[in-house]
Amino acid sequence: MTKTDIASRVYNHTWKLDPIIRSLIDTDFYKLLMLQMIWKLYPTVDATFSLINRTTTVRLADEIDEHELREQLNHARSLHLTKKEMIWLAGNTFYGRKQIFEPEFLNWLATYQLPEYELSRRDGQYELHFHGRWMETTMWEIPALAIINELRSRAAMRHMGQFTLDVLYARAKAKMWEKVERLRTLQGLRVSDFGTRRRHSFLWQRWCVEALKEGIGPAFTGTSNVLLAMDSDLEAVGTNAHELPMVVAALANNDDELRAAPYKVLKDWNTLYGGNLLIVLPDAFGTSAFLHDAPEWVADWTGFRPDSAPPIEGGEKIIDWWRKMGRDPRGKLLIFSDGLDVDAIIDTYRHFEGRVRMSFGWGTNLTNDFAGCAPQHVESLKPISLVCKVSEANGRPAVKLSDNPRKATGEPEEVERYLRFFGTQDRVEQAVVV
Amino acid sequence: MTKTDIASRVYNHTWKLDPIIRSLIDTDFYKLLMLQMIWKLYPTVDATFSLINRTTTVRLADEIDEHELREQLNHARSLHLTKKEMIWLAGNTFYGRKQIFEPEFLNWLATYQLPEYELSRRDGQYELHFHGRWMETTMWEIPALAIINELRSRAAMRHMGQFTLDVLYARAKAKMWEKVERLRTLQGLRVSDFGTRRRHSFLWQRWCVEALKEGIGPAFTGTSNVLLAMDSDLEAVGTNAHELPMVVAALANNDDELRAAPYKVLKDWNTLYGGNLLIVLPDAFGTSAFLHDAPEWVADWTGFRPDSAPPIEGGEKIIDWWRKMGRDPRGKLLIFSDGLDVDAIIDTYRHFEGRVRMSFGWGTNLTNDFAGCAPQHVESLKPISLVCKVSEANGRPAVKLSDNPRKATGEPEEVERYLRFFGTQDRVEQAVVV
Repeated sequence: MTKTDIASRVYNHTWKLDPIIRSLIDTDFYKLLMLQMIWKLYPTVDATFSLINRTTTVRLADEIDEHELREQLNHARSLHLTKKEMIWLAGNTFYGRKQIFEPEFLNWLATYQLPEYELSRRDGQYELHFHGRWMETTMWEIPALAIINELRSRAAMRHMGQFTLDVLYARAKAKMWEKVERLRTLQGLRVSDFGTRRRHSFLWQRWCVEALKEGIGPAFTGTSNVLLAMDSDLEAVGTNAHELPMVVAALANNDDELRAAPYKVLKDWNTLYGGNLLIVLPDAFGTSAFLHDAPEWVADWTGFRPDSAPPIEGGEKIIDWWRKMGRDPRGKLLIFSDGLDVDAIIDTYRHFEGRVRMSFGWGTNLTNDFAGCAPQHVESLKPISLVCKVSEANGRPAVKLSDNPRKATGEPEEVERYLRFFGTQDRVEQAVVV
Repeated sequence: MTKTDIASRVYNHTWKLDPIIRSLIDTDFYKLLMLQMIWKLYPTVDATFSLINRTTTVRLADEIDEHELREQLNHARSLHLTKKEMIWLAGNTFYGRKQIFEPEFLNWLATYQLPEYELSRRDGQYELHFHGRWMETTMWEIPALAIINELRSRAAMRHMGQFTLDVLYARAKAKMWEKVERLRTLQGLRVSDFGTRRRHSFLWQRWCVEALKEGIGPAFTGTSNVLLAMDSDLEAVGTNAHELPMVVAALANNDDELRAAPYKVLKDWNTLYGGNLLIVLPDAFGTSAFLHDAPEWVADWTGFRPDSAPPIEGGEKIIDWWRKMGRDPRGKLLIFSDGLDVDAIIDTYRHFEGRVRMSFGWGTNLTNDFAGCAPQHVESLKPISLVCKVSEANGRPAVKLSDNPRKATGEPEEVERYLRFFGTQDRVEQAVVV
């Protein structure tokens, strides 16, 4: 018998919508941790999230069909958490802690749906905004980015033949496995997947995550993707993001509140979480300013996540500060997560080996590295620097400075005001690739 | 690893055209035999073929998208015979005879393409005509019918879910296998597939043909589908069709030529073919009239194919005629091929067992019987009585009377003229289901 599953074939060729986001927990774990804090401490705050394409040379509105984009966003809005997901969130142990999510929070989450979106086009780019309560809008960040990135790769592959696609993925798998083999050589390495938002596609991220699980074993410490953590029995990893200090700073009514904002956020966080979740993200308004004004207790936190300074430079600065505060860095943790690939992971690991505990959050270059894989060159398979940032809180503009001026977000005059306030010390211009 | 062939999945979900006809030999074998005769003896005759939907309650133009229909017809027009197909046609033995196709004919066929079509809509039906040389237009009959029938089943299945489709085909396979088991009980049965034109789909016909090959073994004597015969190593079967007497009758310049037409066609045929290919199709203008005027030599032919009379009645009439002509029916062959299903095959077989050699050409009810298979009732999965008949030859109207008035084709006044000429004797009204 000539083997063809006729039913599957008919189904595949009368395909309607192929949803990119099929679960509300197909998102980063830190969004859930932050969501619980926002729900508990800032339930009435409004926050607008906005799409920002830093790779302005790529005209997203020309590459991605608006109708398809709306279909995908609408489908994501139709999702609720499933019973299985609710039970898993309630029953699973995260960071060694049971019931990290309060029953009241889970009750609220059980009926949660993504809020409305505002989509328009301007000079070849999409203007995408999410208005509403912070605890509603914050959950759009990851699905919105994953949808746009996957629609972009689908468009890039739309006209490829069956063998072109077969070779494309074969090469991508071979390329990925070479990275696995290089990482294997590092004793005691700790790497986790941070690639959800920038992934080529959900299925490809799943392949990469499962390849790491088999390929580097215990060195693979988990994935930020909650759905993949559940399905592949991995640790869900992640702590907090810039949106917390950005919103709290935007809400500040005076200079004292603004100066206190980055530390108030840590206190807020500490009311809900402890242990390995006590990770400082220092660069929202510049790491130097943060360390200069940091209260003594910040040095008691488990670790830091330098997210925009060059890893070695940024790490050294934090280690110096720990020493200055009389803490032994060897007991501390540094989490690197900014545009890493294998070379940067290996160099950074070798540089700090034995001096500090380290963990690497591997993102775009893990789940969306198809450079040189397509039989013919396809520019639109190259990942872009696309983010979805909080732009307003209770009607006030939100700002991020970061240690790399090119990663700053917010209205120019407001960015200037923050720079005058927090200072420009040690900010280093670096190309932002992803 | 969660098993998903990402490349195939991406390919399936960016599917463009799924061609229904992928080969010029995805057609009935008798079209090639007739084509060689037309090419040799009637190369300058023009013949128009026209689509006729006898199931007028089904509004084809509402069920099938015109753009899809044109895409499929255009794709069929782009086909040439492949090297492999040419070599097989030249090298294979058909009906025990080597090189049944002349080298000159094959040279001409090597560059053949389907000619233009004329498509329009009228009251919910498609008007589809093929104008041109007979040896060009005749090849449209089977692909045109197969395309429309498969587009109709695709439309019927377009909104079915994966499990609905899975169950649909599971039930169709089970139903088909029950027929196989019933046919197995008949000793010395000879059945072949005549289901190309009315098939649900190409893949489904292939499944049915291969199921018969495994299921009834030697009782399965072949398929009329040349491509399946080549791919599945089966005998290609089929002889001639009504278009031959219809065209020759239309070309008649006087009553004598008209009366001689049905027999002239047999003489023409005999100049190219012999043995088991000497099968008389007697009902073009009524079997009684045909037998009444038949010259003695017609009784020397191998057999008859009664195609519109009820099988038992039609068979008895021919057997009586053989006896009258002093021939022993036990040495003769009757091929039944009109709207058969298992019951009719078994009844007819039992009725004539031992009195005459028999063969059954099983069509629509073999390759398009999904009655009761869809989880919910889908009217449009029911096959319809769709034919593509020669309507004009050198500008003169072509007519078919047949033994069943409901199967008559041609302009009413012309049908009347033929009826006056050949007589209405023994013509029996029967419902035309397929």
